[in-house]
Amino acid sequence: MTEIKAFIEKNKETYLSELFELLRIPSVSADSRHKDDVRKAAEYVLQKLREAGVDRAELMETPGHPIVFAEKVVDPSKPTVLVYGHYDVQPPDPLALWNSPPFEPTVRDGKIYARGSCDDKGQFYMHIKALEIMMKRKEVPCNIKFMIEGEEEVGSAHLGEFVKVNKAKLKADVILISDTALISLDQPSITVGLRGLSYMEVQVTGPNRDLHSGVYGGAVANPANVLCQMIASLHDESGRVNIPGFYDDVVELTAEERAALNRAPFNLDEYKKELGIAEVRGEKGYTTLERTGTRPTLDVNGIWGGYTGEGAKTVLPSTASAKISMRLVPNQHPDKITALFTRHFQSLAPKSVTVKVTAHHGGEAAVTPTDSKAFRAAARAFEEVWGKTPIPTRDGGSIPIVALFKKELGLDTVLMGFGLDSDALHSPNEHYGIRNFLIGIETIVAFHRNFAQ
Amino acid sequence: MTEIKAFIEKNKETYLSELFELLRIPSVSADSRHKDDVRKAAEYVLQKLREAGVDRAELMETPGHPIVFAEKVVDPSKPTVLVYGHYDVQPPDPLALWNSPPFEPTVRDGKIYARGSCDDKGQFYMHIKALEIMMKRKEVPCNIKFMIEGEEEVGSAHLGEFVKVNKAKLKADVILISDTALISLDQPSITVGLRGLSYMEVQVTGPNRDLHSGVYGGAVANPANVLCQMIASLHDESGRVNIPGFYDDVVELTAEERAALNRAPFNLDEYKKELGIAEVRGEKGYTTLERTGTRPTLDVNGIWGGYTGEGAKTVLPSTASAKISMRLVPNQHPDKITALFTRHFQSLAPKSVTVKVTAHHGGEAAVTPTDSKAFRAAARAFEEVWGKTPIPTRDGGSIPIVALFKKELGLDTVLMGFGLDSDALHSPNEHYGIRNFLIGIETIVAFHRNFAQ
Repeated sequence: MTEIKAFIEKNKETYLSELFELLRIPSVSADSRHKDDVRKAAEYVLQKLREAGVDRAELMETPGHPIVFAEKVVDPSKPTVLVYGHYDVQPPDPLALWNSPPFEPTVRDGKIYARGSCDDKGQFYMHIKALEIMMKRKEVPCNIKFMIEGEEEVGSAHLGEFVKVNKAKLKADVILISDTALISLDQPSITVGLRGLSYMEVQVTGPNRDLHSGVYGGAVANPANVLCQMIASLHDESGRVNIPGFYDDVVELTAEERAALNRAPFNLDEYKKELGIAEVRGEKGYTTLERTGTRPTLDVNGIWGGYTGEGAKTVLPSTASAKISMRLVPNQHPDKITALFTRHFQSLAPKSVTVKVTAHHGGEAAVTPTDSKAFRAAARAFEEVWGKTPIPTRDGGSIPIVALFKKELGLDTVLMGFGLDSDALHSPNEHYGIRNFLIGIETIVAFHRNFAQ
Repeated sequence: MTEIKAFIEKNKETYLSELFELLRIPSVSADSRHKDDVRKAAEYVLQKLREAGVDRAELMETPGHPIVFAEKVVDPSKPTVLVYGHYDVQPPDPLALWNSPPFEPTVRDGKIYARGSCDDKGQFYMHIKALEIMMKRKEVPCNIKFMIEGEEEVGSAHLGEFVKVNKAKLKADVILISDTALISLDQPSITVGLRGLSYMEVQVTGPNRDLHSGVYGGAVANPANVLCQMIASLHDESGRVNIPGFYDDVVELTAEERAALNRAPFNLDEYKKELGIAEVRGEKGYTTLERTGTRPTLDVNGIWGGYTGEGAKTVLPSTASAKISMRLVPNQHPDKITALFTRHFQSLAPKSVTVKVTAHHGGEAAVTPTDSKAFRAAARAFEEVWGKTPIPTRDGGSIPIVALFKKELGLDTVLMGFGLDSDALHSPNEHYGIRNFLIGIETIVAFHRNFAQ
């Protein structure tokens, strides 16, 4: 592995400048104004895969943003790794809070600051560079396929259909994804559990126009107040989600599983200090690691209504809206939760308002096996490169593709992520450590060699 | 009065085109980007007062926007009327809901659509035209002073100080204000009660940055959820404001007062239909007229936090904010209510967040006498011009200057407004009837004649 490390060190400026070019493309899939940018990012990825030496690469159209597919088949009798990633990114707002422009990658303290640097451009790009290195060294131990999509941040709307109709093309032995976080650079880890997601938007409408709050206030239901009351009622006093049936399918962890989970290194004081909070808050009876790793949640992701500008406007707004998402755990089904939420939220509305509930997207939770050949290959790769055995962890985030792959292709996934929880994913000043990027490439090369054995 | 009516009819195109020029100036006092426009409006008013024939007119500076003062003294032994109005307007947003540009007055169905058409440019401008007519006819029966300010929509921050230091200049026998609404064009009315106001802004802060709702959701307090819980708790189940001490100073109306108030023409079905709502909603035990005219309220005027753009963003926001205002009734003091709100809202915050409460502005409620010489002159003016006796009403809105004038100058106010509740004040498509504008001028001329007698 020393040779690989030296090779990466020698070429790192090139690798970084290529990644920076990708980071400069504002491929915000949620914003239709960036449609062309999203395609531009896909085309850049396609080009870089071709340059890395794949046999063939193509842009596969969907009703939404295209999927980049590529493959390098060295020997059909050898195992095949299907790398999944996404070239789309979260919207960058609030822009005012970025210390450098979100689409102009800037290095500070050894970290690349840019939207998508960690999630997921910086992470999937490691796989393209790993292939390139193996090609140049004529040591490609497995067949490798790539499926890099452009709709992960908006719920992978067209990926399910794509996977269903392209099963032969996607045939593989394992899925490999780098889109999760390590415990730290001192303690590698492999994510073995992910939460599911149900993402809703609600709109409460009262009067048919904004009203003068003096003339009508007190006599006409205020949709903003009503929305607050409805949202407040979605949690009970112990922090549980107060939607009938919400917990029906939740499987409680065994005492042993809980104990194992809580053995992961975690310092509550440091956690609070890093976030600038005096206290954590969540469902009673669970630790912080349990709350994020094993319990379902309900969070307001955005809320708006009425006058939000400078100064004061005495308006009784006509409507108030919120984006509300629920993180789900294994065995909870997003479609069922979406239906439960919709019915319950509608039932909360007083007659003085009307309520519209829309589902944005959802995804199933997943638990990946720790006893597979692929997991063991990943663990050995970490041991070789990092000199430490990775700890299995459960992540709070969602990668719905994991459950989809299992269901449609019968394949397990290895979540070999190199980010950190503190990388500010989905936040202003998202960043990714240069060291994480470089050691990630090295670890991925090690994975392939171990997986082929 | 027939001559006056004919005179107005003959000159109405000129009057309207002058008003339109004023309406084209976007004098939004809440928005610092419109500072120059606000001054431009003041200068236009100054010029029009001079053209109408006042003895002197001046722009009086304040630390904020200037106050236009003017006077026409015909005979120091005659009574003096001090006309108050405001040339500033509410912000026009949401812009998308206007059917014609807010600062390009457009006539549809006999109504002038523009921000400020009714509140208050179209209303105070009637007084300038009334003076001009009386000057031209050499029939100015009283002395007239004008005080037209530019900060009414942001709480008249500098008017109190101005009134205190200019008591001699403002000496008068009555205040006359046109900034309220009639019951209808078929049924004139005079407002005799106004609610006070306490306008607050709150900000709830959780983590020091926006977080990934998957990685942190369930373990870290979400400020948007917490804000909703705090706001929801501000009303109890009977629709009363749930702030300790809030009702302490509220004087309940007598059974007779309530009966008189409820005799005003009011059709609940038409009210609901006009607003597009299935049910009204307010404090239990009170009618709609009582709720808006005699009871204090608490309304969210604006709320915002997290991701509010297109699509979905799985963010746990760092902060969430709201603008919350309370309408007050006579004997409730805004400073006391502001203090009660601040203390209570702070106390609602769990330790996992911090809360910042800021007071925007306030104003006292007011009740004006119905047995004064000025009120009787206003009533007779309506009778002469409209052929009907006006009904005294209590308005839900606030004009803090009324209490201020009483306190500082010892003067009562006559609220001789010509708008309609359906004029969409503070809303998109604000409008003012051309007929209201013209008959208003005529009624004001009749007021001066009656008041002088």
